[in-house]
Amino acid sequence: MNKFGKAFSFTTYGESHGKAIGAIIDGVPAGLCISEEFIQKELDKRKPGVNKFSTPRKENDKVEILSGVFEGVSTGTPISLIIFNQNQKSKDYSNIKDIFRPSHADFTYHYKYGHRDYMGGGRSSARETAMRVGVGAIAKLILNELGIVVSSGVYQIGNIKSHNLDFEYAKTSEIYSLDKEQEEKQKQEILKAKNAHDSIGGSVKVVIKNTPKGLGEPLYYKLDAILCSAMMSINASKSCSIGLGQESIQMNGSKFNDAIRQDGFSSNNSGGILGGISNGEDIEITTYFKPTPSIFIEQDTITKDNINTTCKIKGRHDPCVAIRGSIVCEAMASIVIADMLLLNMGKKMDNLKKIYKK
Amino acid sequence: MNKFGKAFSFTTYGESHGKAIGAIIDGVPAGLCISEEFIQKELDKRKPGVNKFSTPRKENDKVEILSGVFEGVSTGTPISLIIFNQNQKSKDYSNIKDIFRPSHADFTYHYKYGHRDYMGGGRSSARETAMRVGVGAIAKLILNELGIVVSSGVYQIGNIKSHNLDFEYAKTSEIYSLDKEQEEKQKQEILKAKNAHDSIGGSVKVVIKNTPKGLGEPLYYKLDAILCSAMMSINASKSCSIGLGQESIQMNGSKFNDAIRQDGFSSNNSGGILGGISNGEDIEITTYFKPTPSIFIEQDTITKDNINTTCKIKGRHDPCVAIRGSIVCEAMASIVIADMLLLNMGKKMDNLKKIYKK
Amino acid sequence: MNKFGKAFSFTTYGESHGKAIGAIIDGVPAGLCISEEFIQKELDKRKPGVNKFSTPRKENDKVEILSGVFEGVSTGTPISLIIFNQNQKSKDYSNIKDIFRPSHADFTYHYKYGHRDYMGGGRSSARETAMRVGVGAIAKLILNELGIVVSSGVYQIGNIKSHNLDFEYAKTSEIYSLDKEQEEKQKQEILKAKNAHDSIGGSVKVVIKNTPKGLGEPLYYKLDAILCSAMMSINASKSCSIGLGQESIQMNGSKFNDAIRQDGFSSNNSGGILGGISNGEDIEITTYFKPTPSIFIEQDTITKDNINTTCKIKGRHDPCVAIRGSIVCEAMASIVIADMLLLNMGKKMDNLKKIYKK
Amino acid sequence: MNKFGKAFSFTTYGESHGKAIGAIIDGVPAGLCISEEFIQKELDKRKPGVNKFSTPRKENDKVEILSGVFEGVSTGTPISLIIFNQNQKSKDYSNIKDIFRPSHADFTYHYKYGHRDYMGGGRSSARETAMRVGVGAIAKLILNELGIVVSSGVYQIGNIKSHNLDFEYAKTSEIYSLDKEQEEKQKQEILKAKNAHDSIGGSVKVVIKNTPKGLGEPLYYKLDAILCSAMMSINASKSCSIGLGQESIQMNGSKFNDAIRQDGFSSNNSGGILGGISNGEDIEITTYFKPTPSIFIEQDTITKDNINTTCKIKGRHDPCVAIRGSIVCEAMASIVIADMLLLNMGKKMDNLKKIYKK
Repeated sequence: MNKFGKAFSFTTYGESHGKAIGAIIDGVPAGLCISEEFIQKELDKRKPGVNKFSTPRKENDKVEILSGVFEGVSTGTPISLIIFNQNQKSKDYSNIKDIFRPSHADFTYHYKYGHRDYMGGGRSSARETAMRVGVGAIAKLILNELGIVVSSGVYQIGNIKSHNLDFEYAKTSEIYSLDKEQEEKQKQEILKAKNAHDSIGGSVKVVIKNTPKGLGEPLYYKLDAILCSAMMSINASKSCSIGLGQESIQMNGSKFNDAIRQDGFSSNNSGGILGGISNGEDIEITTYFKPTPSIFIEQDTITKDNINTTCKIKGRHDPCVAIRGSIVCEAMASIVIADMLLLNMGKKMDNLKKIYKK
Repeated sequence: MNKFGKAFSFTTYGESHGKAIGAIIDGVPAGLCISEEFIQKELDKRKPGVNKFSTPRKENDKVEILSGVFEGVSTGTPISLIIFNQNQKSKDYSNIKDIFRPSHADFTYHYKYGHRDYMGGGRSSARETAMRVGVGAIAKLILNELGIVVSSGVYQIGNIKSHNLDFEYAKTSEIYSLDKEQEEKQKQEILKAKNAHDSIGGSVKVVIKNTPKGLGEPLYYKLDAILCSAMMSINASKSCSIGLGQESIQMNGSKFNDAIRQDGFSSNNSGGILGGISNGEDIEITTYFKPTPSIFIEQDTITKDNINTTCKIKGRHDPCVAIRGSIVCEAMASIVIADMLLLNMGKKMDNLKKIYKK
Repeated sequence: MNKFGKAFSFTTYGESHGKAIGAIIDGVPAGLCISEEFIQKELDKRKPGVNKFSTPRKENDKVEILSGVFEGVSTGTPISLIIFNQNQKSKDYSNIKDIFRPSHADFTYHYKYGHRDYMGGGRSSARETAMRVGVGAIAKLILNELGIVVSSGVYQIGNIKSHNLDFEYAKTSEIYSLDKEQEEKQKQEILKAKNAHDSIGGSVKVVIKNTPKGLGEPLYYKLDAILCSAMMSINASKSCSIGLGQESIQMNGSKFNDAIRQDGFSSNNSGGILGGISNGEDIEITTYFKPTPSIFIEQDTITKDNINTTCKIKGRHDPCVAIRGSIVCEAMASIVIADMLLLNMGKKMDNLKKIYKK
Repeated sequence: MNKFGKAFSFTTYGESHGKAIGAIIDGVPAGLCISEEFIQKELDKRKPGVNKFSTPRKENDKVEILSGVFEGVSTGTPISLIIFNQNQKSKDYSNIKDIFRPSHADFTYHYKYGHRDYMGGGRSSARETAMRVGVGAIAKLILNELGIVVSSGVYQIGNIKSHNLDFEYAKTSEIYSLDKEQEEKQKQEILKAKNAHDSIGGSVKVVIKNTPKGLGEPLYYKLDAILCSAMMSINASKSCSIGLGQESIQMNGSKFNDAIRQDGFSSNNSGGILGGISNGEDIEITTYFKPTPSIFIEQDTITKDNINTTCKIKGRHDPCVAIRGSIVCEAMASIVIADMLLLNMGKKMDNLKKIYKK
């Protein structure tokens, strides 16, 4: 159950404070140029400790390719990515060892498995998402060859919405904000929470441009369903929308429906997907992240033995997970598209003939 | 890709106006009492034509079990459900044969497959959801044996929210409304759209009670991710949330986090799921449906040959898909829980010993 | 677990004496011409009761397509095949209801599931293989378009081997014998067993010609591994070999190895597969069937309550399952090749560019 | 496609001369005691260079656990095993870089992928089987807890059969021979091939004792079909049999059928499996290995550019792969049983009640 995807798929392993975290990617087509440098650059976008809006914790993660790439080119065999943890087991976890941090996975891992690695959240730590970004980088290399572009940015922090969606600007923003005008207010929202030893929620937009028509496998591997599943598998996400999403419930069909013209769709309320299949328009996904559960205020909780107690979390944590979360959303979207590209190839007899007929 | 679920799984087939629609369910444990009557009753909840809030189209669907049940009890072999279509190919589809209805799947099926059944939407018709309700009925029979209860209801129509979540009342409401007080306004919202030959969106809540702690398989088969994928695979859904969902982005962690006490959680903002695993609290899912794409107002579109034209849809369609959609959401949630119950059984060595040790 | 294949996959349902048996095929590319007539013809090859070498039981199976084909052409949606059982529940099974027939699945279904359909073997009956032949027919239609040809024949009955492999002759032989010269002796072997109220084993060869190089997905979906799994899933098969198979253990590498020349391989001891991938030579598979477990001689067995008893099977059964089994082997091989053709399409970046680059 | 198993599953990666080989195991139940020492001991059984019957090549493989085990006990999260390659890229491969070694996978990897790692066979090298043995060790730990025992041994080398199946003796034999009496002759067969710079084939038996009744998931995940698929996925295997296997084709049903008595089956010709499900008797599997393709005699072959040439393989290779292959067969059988144990848990409603009912 630690595997995602069907044709382009990956499996991750590793705990926050174990020896290493890693991923095996299965299904990368042979003949793709792959460099550790590109993967590293993608990973660095998710790196914390670079400014005051994320955790001051340093993670100088260095990714390594262990297999599947020969002379810089993929061979079609599994690609193994690994990051060795640098500060494993270095910390004192006695304060959280026997209690359940509120709104963390401590409680549920305990009841599901009986035995859990409590250090830094173990397997349930968001540290695992580093591997998703690594895998996403390889997916992006495939997409690049076909001209498909995936971008992301932070849309809303607390009450502060972006009024503009500038995905180019987001790349340069310290908080990956989509709106230069609203960015300062969004930053203040984060600092206000941080200074109160608290945290704040936020939302992230991903847009996918130049997707071919026809991606998505109805009825139970629809493009929108799998994109949402991908986003909802990211730590702290509580909701996911396609196109206008929740706004659409207040609309009439005559307003919502996207008229079609010779030169394309007149609007894109559907967010680029109809009947679970891409229609060639921009694919638009919004993911909603709850506030970071780790706050530095005393909270009520219980011990493993079901005794009432309180906990006060130490350590360093992002005041707003949505910021670095945007990089993870972008990676997961890239992975879904790579998977769908491969799955779609066999859906027409004409395609089989193109490849097999002499 | 027409299969859903891993341990309790089903595959559906069939087009809106073909000979039949059906499902094969694989993984139903042996020894479960199964009656066609119970399945039929569940199906009847989704039946249109019973009042003025749904399409006047009659679908006197009669479900039949073809296999997997012997002397009223499941044998552990695949259960095949079938509904024969009664009015197949009876209608004149010449007006939509060569055009793409706006916000329907006509356009994308055409580009993906090249060859499509245009009659009543063919495979992309919501008629397929009848089979989901049939499969969901069997999932419910498993849940019943373990005391788990899944309920649903309509939360919002257009701008009219429910202020109260009365799942018992919803069962008796003509529009499955969760709030007796708001129901009349919600009905008016539907009729207003209907009378204008238009449609309206809506949202649906599902609640699951008495779920054991520990359901959900991190990291890529998390309970919330798969529930959302299930909901997003339903026709016309554009967004899905767990617990407080999108509201959570405006909250601080100190407000959102659910404190834990000896006798349970102090709040349930998380909607019963932490780290992708059930925590024993009520599981709360909200699904958002766009307005029915089929409206009776002239719309701009193109032909298969990419010529601008207009279309005016005939026939009978629901003014608000959320109503009957609630029954489908309930069915899909039941299916996900049945699947997760089976998957979770092997997660502890103690469980293996319980079953295999003499 | 009633599903086979990944990209071209099918799921079957149905019991020997239930209402119907059927299959859903998922992954058939759109744009394939499909006729019920062709499928019926394939099914008729497996039909019993046509001569004295198979059971005199009549099965006038009529296959019907319920979905996925529109105007004679596949739409890319699931294809549902169904055969309604004609003589369901007509027989008296009281003599086998509470006992386990030796070397049948009665015993194991009882212990696995606790509740079983005892009529004609229920789900474990070889009747299910009719659906495999139906699905195989559709796989063959894909293969035909690409020039790939799958043939089968009976190689050995009891001690009587074929000395010659004439797949064309086999099509016309009453016992699908591969060797006109040995056929009479093979027939005598069958009749000898039949007249003694006994049964006899046999082996079947399948050859696949014109397979493209490159089919098979190492390391755990190798072409040979999946072909063997397919054959071993057929009732009564006890062994499966590729190429020289078991003979190879007595050989030296210098004798076994297939030298390679500009114009192809100098020999084909490997049976067309190297490292789990097709090499373009003929693929050769041999499947070994035990004697039919149903014999008309009294045998020692026990009741469900573990009391010693004897059973004497009534009814009509093939004296040698290998004969009709050859048709099933051919179907399963066709299905595996169709699946592998689809899976292989995405293994090279060049193929993605062929399909997606404008 | 580098994943094996459903509930207990693993994915491997790595090339013969890359940085490392590894495996991720998903689905190990929480609460299992796991030690690197035990895994290492299993791996050492497969280690070459210990006597004159295997390659003199040294592989001092040291396995490491990277995740999924906390304080010596499994946590239910993925277990990552890794072995770093010690002599990567050290050798000169210029002589085989541009040619295809006969009966190796060089030819097919080239045609399938276009780009291949030629060093030591790359991904197609039998070196990957080390990881299977590592994974098998963990499967065995599960089996141990339930009293299930898997053993293996070499049955035949060239023409020399074992007349006796002594699985205890095999553990101590230099060639894992099942028969002390025949061992010397079998050794001579190997040395004869070795001294002639040639290789020889052989066969391996695996027996599984104390398997519960009911393992195996018909119809397409039958215990015998999956065991054969597992064996056929091992390098150089060309055939696989269950129970009497190919002998059964010469037998009458009256001789083959296993009568059933109160205290068990009177014979075990079926090899412990009926209808794809274990019957509680010993499960018996035979796997047939072709002679090692790497021989030190000049052979005809072609270059990548399809020019006739010859090749003479250098290096150190096993004269008979069946010997070390037996350890791999044992590992794969253990893995299949672990998988089937987990899958079978949900097949009866009674089992669900045992685990979920309070």
